[in-house]
Amino acid sequence: MITIDEVRRRAEADAKTYGYYLTPQPELLQGFLEGLKINEDRYGYPLCPCRLTSGNFEYDRDIICPCDYRDPDVAQYGACYCRLYVNKQVYESQNLPEVPERRPAEKIARAYGTQAAAAKPTSPQAEQEKPPAQAEKPVSGVKKKLWYCKQCGYVVFREDPPYVCPICKAKREMFAEIDNSVEFNG
Amino acid sequence: MITIDEVRRRAEADAKTYGYYLTPQPELLQGFLEGLKINEDRYGYPLCPCRLTSGNFEYDRDIICPCDYRDPDVAQYGACYCRLYVNKQVYESQNLPEVPERRPAEKIARAYGTQAAAAKPTSPQAEQEKPPAQAEKPVSGVKKKLWYCKQCGYVVFREDPPYVCPICKAKREMFAEIDNSVEFNG
Amino acid sequence: MITIDEVRRRAEADAKTYGYYLTPQPELLQGFLEGLKINEDRYGYPLCPCRLTSGNFEYDRDIICPCDYRDPDVAQYGACYCRLYVNKQVYESQNLPEVPERRPAEKIARAYGTQAAAAKPTSPQAEQEKPPAQAEKPVSGVKKKLWYCKQCGYVVFREDPPYVCPICKAKREMFAEIDNSVEFNG
Repeated sequence: MITIDEVRRRAEADAKTYGYYLTPQPELLQGFLEGLKINEDRYGYPLCPCRLTSGNFEYDRDIICPCDYRDPDVAQYGACYCRLYVNKQVYESQNLPEVPERRPAEKIARAYGTQAAAAKPTSPQAEQEKPPAQAEKPVSGVKKKLWYCKQCGYVVFREDPPYVCPICKAKREMFAEIDNSVEFNG
Repeated sequence: MITIDEVRRRAEADAKTYGYYLTPQPELLQGFLEGLKINEDRYGYPLCPCRLTSGNFEYDRDIICPCDYRDPDVAQYGACYCRLYVNKQVYESQNLPEVPERRPAEKIARAYGTQAAAAKPTSPQAEQEKPPAQAEKPVSGVKKKLWYCKQCGYVVFREDPPYVCPICKAKREMFAEIDNSVEFNG
Repeated sequence: MITIDEVRRRAEADAKTYGYYLTPQPELLQGFLEGLKINEDRYGYPLCPCRLTSGNFEYDRDIICPCDYRDPDVAQYGACYCRLYVNKQVYESQNLPEVPERRPAEKIARAYGTQAAAAKPTSPQAEQEKPPAQAEKPVSGVKKKLWYCKQCGYVVFREDPPYVCPICKAKREMFAEIDNSVEFNG
């Protein structure tokens, strides 16, 4: 069991790392931290408290907090989809922007399309169950590759590259696949 | 088209990530941000506004902002070559240090030697053109390898290792090549 | 030779990157920085000033500052084993917590068990010698693998995964080995 304090410290440290702030509204913040704790206790990882789980790790991976969409959303809107992470301007103005869902429709469809009956809201208020035991098994349609940032060389092993390079802030278009057959066996 | 505000927010977030500051001189800062925007609109990536482009991505990669030389330069001189990124002491004193060009002569020669006629200043004031269409193709003399930091294990795919490990701050000498034939196929 | 100022700036920048602070006690801080400088001058890397060296890089790798244990220790106790890196609460309260040694017994045994006579305290006050020349050679029992963070895709090449993902703060259990035979040669 993770404590609320641990969830809070992790979120604060992560915000500092990326130059972000946590939401300036204390009740919202408390609700998010509780939602993250509930999800981490239940699933083993801090699923976004504002989105539905598919009950399958590989399909939910992109919405584990900090989600894949946080960095481009804070860059474009000043806040993530939840408005848990905000930039300095939003923090100081206390005006939380509307942030549209950036998660691609095909990922949403893949996650919920075949498991609609199992999908549940992940907010603290909602009823939830443990995901099925096969959650960690390979999932059809998720193929991971080694990608690298052409600017700084950062390497990730993912289905698709991140939206923003966490090391040099290059955008997604700067990522390319590492071609093993050519590059590794030299 | 990227906006000046986006360029500024990215630079601010990046400065915060690494514990740096942006230059304390507002006119300089504005000029750098405009230069970065111009370069990003023109080339697709924020080439250093204080250096020449070769018109070839692989030859210019090390001078995309934040350039390969920023971290060792801030550590040694308190500022990067441009003086866009500075440390706390420089920020507070407002005395911008002279920072010599750390870029190795052979990289400069490789970039401009064969394309001297195409090289152009990248400052906002200078005339510039789109790089030739073959810029993304493999370039003779640039062979990428997988390197890892012997201290923390950070992996990069680059021609040569970074000067400073962005994860644990180990120096370049702590990077070694990953030997695929031994390590991967076990 | 690295200077005390360089050691200090590196530690300050690293603390900022991760949202930490350096110990609020000035004499302690000075002692740690001097210890790190002595170790870096002697061994080529900033070995933890609070722990013993084995004289062997591969056996000491996990206790090079910032050590493998800093991030989980700051998350759990508010400070690293040395109390060089602390979190905001500890920094402001100035009450340094007791932090137990997280380094696994088997790593300590491996490091010192066969070389007990060579092991020396690494504090500035202690007598120390250069490690033997074979320090960089492969060491029995240390086999490195490519690991990735299942949440964000971060890739490391290490004997075992980090305790906390430096990119997304996922815990160690979220790391898995990259299966080369399946994933790379496709």
